[in-house]
Amino acid sequence: MTGASERPVAILAGSGELPGRLAAQLAVQGRAHRVLAFRGFCEPGLARRADERVDLLDVKGALACLERWNPAAVTLAGGLTRPSPAVLAGAFSAFRNREELAAIVTRGDDNLLRGAIDLLERHGHVVIGVRDLAPEILATTGTYGRLEPDAARLRSIALGLRVLEALSPYDVGQAVAVAGEQVLAVEGPEGTDAMLARVRPRRWWGGRRSASDGVLVKAPKLGQDLRVDLPAIGPRTVARAAKAGLAGIAVASRLTLVLNRPATVAAADRAGLFVVGIEADATEYAHV
Amino acid sequence: MTGASERPVAILAGSGELPGRLAAQLAVQGRAHRVLAFRGFCEPGLARRADERVDLLDVKGALACLERWNPAAVTLAGGLTRPSPAVLAGAFSAFRNREELAAIVTRGDDNLLRGAIDLLERHGHVVIGVRDLAPEILATTGTYGRLEPDAARLRSIALGLRVLEALSPYDVGQAVAVAGEQVLAVEGPEGTDAMLARVRPRRWWGGRRSASDGVLVKAPKLGQDLRVDLPAIGPRTVARAAKAGLAGIAVASRLTLVLNRPATVAAADRAGLFVVGIEADATEYAHV
Repeated sequence: MTGASERPVAILAGSGELPGRLAAQLAVQGRAHRVLAFRGFCEPGLARRADERVDLLDVKGALACLERWNPAAVTLAGGLTRPSPAVLAGAFSAFRNREELAAIVTRGDDNLLRGAIDLLERHGHVVIGVRDLAPEILATTGTYGRLEPDAARLRSIALGLRVLEALSPYDVGQAVAVAGEQVLAVEGPEGTDAMLARVRPRRWWGGRRSASDGVLVKAPKLGQDLRVDLPAIGPRTVARAAKAGLAGIAVASRLTLVLNRPATVAAADRAGLFVVGIEADATEYAHV
Repeated sequence: MTGASERPVAILAGSGELPGRLAAQLAVQGRAHRVLAFRGFCEPGLARRADERVDLLDVKGALACLERWNPAAVTLAGGLTRPSPAVLAGAFSAFRNREELAAIVTRGDDNLLRGAIDLLERHGHVVIGVRDLAPEILATTGTYGRLEPDAARLRSIALGLRVLEALSPYDVGQAVAVAGEQVLAVEGPEGTDAMLARVRPRRWWGGRRSASDGVLVKAPKLGQDLRVDLPAIGPRTVARAAKAGLAGIAVASRLTLVLNRPATVAAADRAGLFVVGIEADATEYAHV
């Protein structure tokens, strides 16, 4: 996807919008890059345009491709999380013994991705994150659209961040939904969309407030490797949050990705939701 | 439900099996008791046999009834949790101003129940819990049926208890599902049954293990008022856990209710699940 002679950045492209956004951002920057698409994960459009495609988690094929490309750096973009353990087992079995494998596949997301980074680094690659490659995609601090959270919603957001912080050591999820001082849902491996699907609109007393008292809060786990698996929002997140009856979305600024920010903000303004980036320090949410 | 002349125990009967079980247990003990059924919450069978019925959360009616009965103690049994805030508002509005009410209904479960206990105590009632009235219903320590958890499942159980402990200050839920070292789901206001419905069977590597690597773990929140809202399991919990592909159920012993233990154990043995009560101290899970 580039003709430059500098050593490229290799994008290992998983699911979702991020790999394509990242490639576009690197093109804007004029930075040499190549895309290796994981079949079955990578979006079909990008997979067709990609420089190479490998099967699901064909680690051997991916490493051979990277050897040919000799990239300056490798980045893992998009979802590679939660393939079935059987698929993972097939992919990893050439490299790890069964005990190591069992230890990896029965752990949470972080550990899977840490395993992938370890593998790449042991093969001599420099692994970097979207944060370094395309900081333009990171959430900024402050409100993004027309609306902003009031004091009560800011308190709900602070509660949500504390819950995520408390869960950090246990590798659970990166999102919660909170209304008032009540936690409506904690994200598990099902992901944010499925979590939002079970947050039903709630009416508060007197009928004077609408259902929209809740907030979706997203932040990475404390101490997680910020090169991979950053929480992300985009226009679809706004649509799902609106359908769940929430008032807005809060993300940890500099630690969350906002995919297609103009469309995200437009969707939020249309739906009457706020979107806000909260400075980590401001909520005692410290990160490595 | 009793002709004894001693001052009765008043059972405020919410949803689920517990109020009926508790009444039966008090009958076995020969202890005078009366049942006040909350319409729309209390199971129809018990509601018909109850001494009095009040509408949903007709706090005024409930208090008037208790004044007539002059009970030795009052116990809140079964689910009164999560009625719509509008219903709560109607019920409480006679007793609290709107600011107090808003503060209650926007908080989690614990706070609602604490509010109910406060209200009863301010009206001169002694509130006691199922633990004191019918300790026979409490989970004991050790395995209950034919099967027991192996070392790996005991590690998953310990992880689940740590997650519940970490979530305790945030009034989220009293159950998690864990497989290996991965948290599959965290219970929110949807309850254990709905949480189990989203835990799909997972196959592990090599296909040599069945889907049943996961464990349902239930324990009360650290520091919660143990007179109300104890986590509970019963035959239905076993059926749902089996359907979710889990290997077994672990509960914090002395802090969890086992409804209909013989049927629970029989269901577990039939489904090939273990049920185990874990001593709180043994997992550094200390309780008030």
